[in-house]
Amino acid sequence: MAEQLPEYRVPLKDMQFLLNEMSDDQGTDGVTNEDLFFILEQAARFAEEELVPINQDGDTNGCVFDNGKVTLPAKLRDAFRTYAEGGWMGLSMPEQFGGQGLPERLSTLVGEILTSANHSFSMTPALTMSASRAIIGHGSDELKETYLEKLLTGTWTGTMCLTEAHCGSDLGLIRTSAEEVSESVYRIKGNKIFISSGQHDAADNIVHLVLARLKDAPKGIKGLSLFLVPAKLKNKAGVWNKKNEVHCIGIEEKMGMHANPTCSMSFEGAEGYLIGKPNRGINAMFTMMNEMRLGASLQGIGLSERSFQKSLQYAVERTQMRSLGGVKAPEKEADPIIVHPDVRRMLLTQKVLAEGGRAMAQFCADLLDESHKPGADKERVELLGLLTPIAKGFLTDTGLASADLAIQMYGGHGFIKETGAEQLFRDGRASTLYEGTTGIQALDLLGRKVLANQGKSLLSFTKLMHVLSKKTSSEKLGDLADTLSGYSKEWPQLAKQVGSKAIGDFEEVGAASYDFLMYSGYVSLAYFWLKMANVAQELLDGTRHPNGETFDRDFLDAKVKNARFYFERILPRARAHKEMMLAGKASIMDITESQLIG
Amino acid sequence: MAEQLPEYRVPLKDMQFLLNEMSDDQGTDGVTNEDLFFILEQAARFAEEELVPINQDGDTNGCVFDNGKVTLPAKLRDAFRTYAEGGWMGLSMPEQFGGQGLPERLSTLVGEILTSANHSFSMTPALTMSASRAIIGHGSDELKETYLEKLLTGTWTGTMCLTEAHCGSDLGLIRTSAEEVSESVYRIKGNKIFISSGQHDAADNIVHLVLARLKDAPKGIKGLSLFLVPAKLKNKAGVWNKKNEVHCIGIEEKMGMHANPTCSMSFEGAEGYLIGKPNRGINAMFTMMNEMRLGASLQGIGLSERSFQKSLQYAVERTQMRSLGGVKAPEKEADPIIVHPDVRRMLLTQKVLAEGGRAMAQFCADLLDESHKPGADKERVELLGLLTPIAKGFLTDTGLASADLAIQMYGGHGFIKETGAEQLFRDGRASTLYEGTTGIQALDLLGRKVLANQGKSLLSFTKLMHVLSKKTSSEKLGDLADTLSGYSKEWPQLAKQVGSKAIGDFEEVGAASYDFLMYSGYVSLAYFWLKMANVAQELLDGTRHPNGETFDRDFLDAKVKNARFYFERILPRARAHKEMMLAGKASIMDITESQLIG
Repeated sequence: MAEQLPEYRVPLKDMQFLLNEMSDDQGTDGVTNEDLFFILEQAARFAEEELVPINQDGDTNGCVFDNGKVTLPAKLRDAFRTYAEGGWMGLSMPEQFGGQGLPERLSTLVGEILTSANHSFSMTPALTMSASRAIIGHGSDELKETYLEKLLTGTWTGTMCLTEAHCGSDLGLIRTSAEEVSESVYRIKGNKIFISSGQHDAADNIVHLVLARLKDAPKGIKGLSLFLVPAKLKNKAGVWNKKNEVHCIGIEEKMGMHANPTCSMSFEGAEGYLIGKPNRGINAMFTMMNEMRLGASLQGIGLSERSFQKSLQYAVERTQMRSLGGVKAPEKEADPIIVHPDVRRMLLTQKVLAEGGRAMAQFCADLLDESHKPGADKERVELLGLLTPIAKGFLTDTGLASADLAIQMYGGHGFIKETGAEQLFRDGRASTLYEGTTGIQALDLLGRKVLANQGKSLLSFTKLMHVLSKKTSSEKLGDLADTLSGYSKEWPQLAKQVGSKAIGDFEEVGAASYDFLMYSGYVSLAYFWLKMANVAQELLDGTRHPNGETFDRDFLDAKVKNARFYFERILPRARAHKEMMLAGKASIMDITESQLIG
Repeated sequence: MAEQLPEYRVPLKDMQFLLNEMSDDQGTDGVTNEDLFFILEQAARFAEEELVPINQDGDTNGCVFDNGKVTLPAKLRDAFRTYAEGGWMGLSMPEQFGGQGLPERLSTLVGEILTSANHSFSMTPALTMSASRAIIGHGSDELKETYLEKLLTGTWTGTMCLTEAHCGSDLGLIRTSAEEVSESVYRIKGNKIFISSGQHDAADNIVHLVLARLKDAPKGIKGLSLFLVPAKLKNKAGVWNKKNEVHCIGIEEKMGMHANPTCSMSFEGAEGYLIGKPNRGINAMFTMMNEMRLGASLQGIGLSERSFQKSLQYAVERTQMRSLGGVKAPEKEADPIIVHPDVRRMLLTQKVLAEGGRAMAQFCADLLDESHKPGADKERVELLGLLTPIAKGFLTDTGLASADLAIQMYGGHGFIKETGAEQLFRDGRASTLYEGTTGIQALDLLGRKVLANQGKSLLSFTKLMHVLSKKTSSEKLGDLADTLSGYSKEWPQLAKQVGSKAIGDFEEVGAASYDFLMYSGYVSLAYFWLKMANVAQELLDGTRHPNGETFDRDFLDAKVKNARFYFERILPRARAHKEMMLAGKASIMDITESQLIG
């Protein structure tokens, strides 16, 4: 038995299993799974060798703000340059703009790896790619030509400037203003907060995408326009070194993610360029936002995986008490704690959340690739729309639960900075807050993606669940298939029940939304777990031919066992959420504000 | 509507409700509830004026370790002296030793107030009182005479020295040694870690209670003895300024609780005195430990209360989006977020956990008073034994959930240190780790307090549930009474089911223990909520005469409504825990260690 496990090693075998056996997309434009896996191995090496070792240093030393300049921890800055120069930034971005044109399921895995290895590091690449997506989707040819290659190569980086001190979830309140000074050139004025990577010393220029309001624009969300505002402009000689009126006026002291600067930005009549149409900024922003939400869901998965490995490392090393089933390590004064059932319960919880979430993310990645193609199937695009708030809301929530379990696994040592367990939680804590809080995801899911859509997308997913439960042939998985089949009927029924209450009383949507989201998350993951268990069981039984690499029986058998753990030990939480969502709004809304204040 | 709520104000009305209407003990030794409430108001003023304002400063500045000396944040040190000199330390300790002899239900409320106001501050008083309890229960007359008055007046403070680097939960592994040098004098050698308040500059002397092993003592837990080891000894002139060989060799960098030093202590042949009998240290330690566990449960309650108030303050101030039920604050650009159902769900969750937990703690406090009396009823003592791991495990777990919700309520601002929401979580995070992790509480509950006791104590509690559900007369509460009645039957049945599986396979106990603990917690709080709602409803209906102060109808009505929220929106979680505990050990234990490692 290996006693010293690494701090984090990329779960390559599980990733290969998903690439080879779980995707319908087996070879895009001549790129084989072997090609993808080869690239993945390089990403793994980079993460393990360059990012993991500097993670704690970044937490301790953090970013420094001095006189308008932000300095990253030097090791992290160097790692970013290595990453960008290695050509990693634009992995799944279109080749015509300087990307690598590889499928999303590869960049999704790489995204997870980065966040597992070093949450702070992962922020700048993710934001830069989201900003690029908005430019690709809505920018003029000139903007594309001028900015995309620099962004996709990481020479420059990007940001999203939405939040202001008085508005976060409610973007309709944005006050930052834009005034046209000449055709396609605007002056941007206003203050933005919580701008991740808003200023730093790892790139030559920073391209801000800023939501602002044109003079005389309508009030609210329909009066917002999106602008591209570079920190540096081109001077007359064609050199990008002319300072724009974009200033970082401070960085936040945060709970975690110390190595990524969260900047307060002041736009003081900065030169900017319209992206898309006037007053339609929110549309362009939503393109970006949805990809960012999927990106944040990877942080949840990465957090569960890293927390699992962090816990596992300790569970095999730390000896404490004897097994309830009899002495396991007679040569030691106590058994390693991995023998204790409650320790295993925690480990397996983290593991099934990580692997189930990863399978879900791979499914979303394939849908994302489809949605980027011209003439994409509407049903598939809407299915992605349904899964996006579930992935973001549920996987970040459970990712934090995994990180919290890592602290718990370490006992008192989990509270000590040196062990690194508590950093995982602190770094990950923002993932349920930014890109729309869990509450916002829940409203988006139930209100927009389910009820406003008459449950159509939900039915297209529950149909997949139903089909999977029918085609589950192994007797070993029969009871799980029955359970999934039950949920495939119950889920849309619950939506209907809540929906009929909500007719004429939208507060019923708000009162049910969080529990509906969590229910949806647990049930979705049950689908992906049964799907994995099915494939694994077929490979074990020899009724399925592997698409490439043959997986060892231990790995496949673990998949089947872990699916059972998920169904028996995690999925029952959906029962509680069902009961709570059906309770209705009365017990929440009947109490008056003054009774709450007391 | 008050828009600026205080950071924290002591929930005096709720506390008065519990003192007057929920306790069977209405007047101990001539001390009336008015007397208790008067004292409580003084404690509230101290907490609000002295402890709340210095809480953030303590986090920022922390403790300093320099050359063996630990310096507390100066404001906290001064506050401790004020507290001690105000006579607060020995509130419920026996008068004969210098305490005030007041009932536990008062000191329990004060304990909660301290932890709500300033978690770091609350540590030293709590530890000092637990150490004192062990001396009272097991020390010689000479030890009592020499140390208790100093401790109960806070002139000196106390610690518990259990943990060593290689042993936390498993105290049987303790290596610190003790050698008798003369009658009743021993030399203590060894290293202890995680010693809260092990060194500081707020008291003249520190009295360590140290678990150590006598020469030739049996292996394991039955070879441990407890020693009293003062940091300073009396010199020949009778002055306590002779240094003992007790050294602080460092303090931990922690996730939170920065204003309380967590010390590594080195005992280098220090002079110590046996408490109780040789090799019976664990008995004395358990006296102390059980009281510490109840003390830690107060931290969970305090955390829920403080998190509720922190969230409430923001929910009435922060405006964001319009109510789903129509505009509520037309004069503002958006409605205060307290109008949103999901925000209320979070607020009410924190509120019912705090108030339900407080009622449970009051019940335990009365049992504790009874248990301190000679000839205490065995059934009542065992009932306290049953409730102790539930209170510790469940209330700290849910306290952290409340603190996590506070971060969530603040959205992105919750991640920023300045707002103070994240500090609550960081400070509270140790509460599920020390004094026995949640997993240890769960094993203690299911293994020792339920199964080893043939469910007797559990039945004495479910009998109370049954009686309460029968005597619930108001139609308004009829459905809640039925629900509670169902749980009063189900709970012992579940214990029986798990117990029969566990015959011959103790791992079944470990596999079910955590879910059994959480189930027990949710069900216990349902009892206390129905009990409060019953009293409130009777007072509203005029069928009950108040024991003192008349409570306003809004307060009583809120109690009834909150009980319903608890039953509809929190208690269903017990359903999930039931299903998970009955799943058995297979899906946890079938997977091999090498499959977990992958």
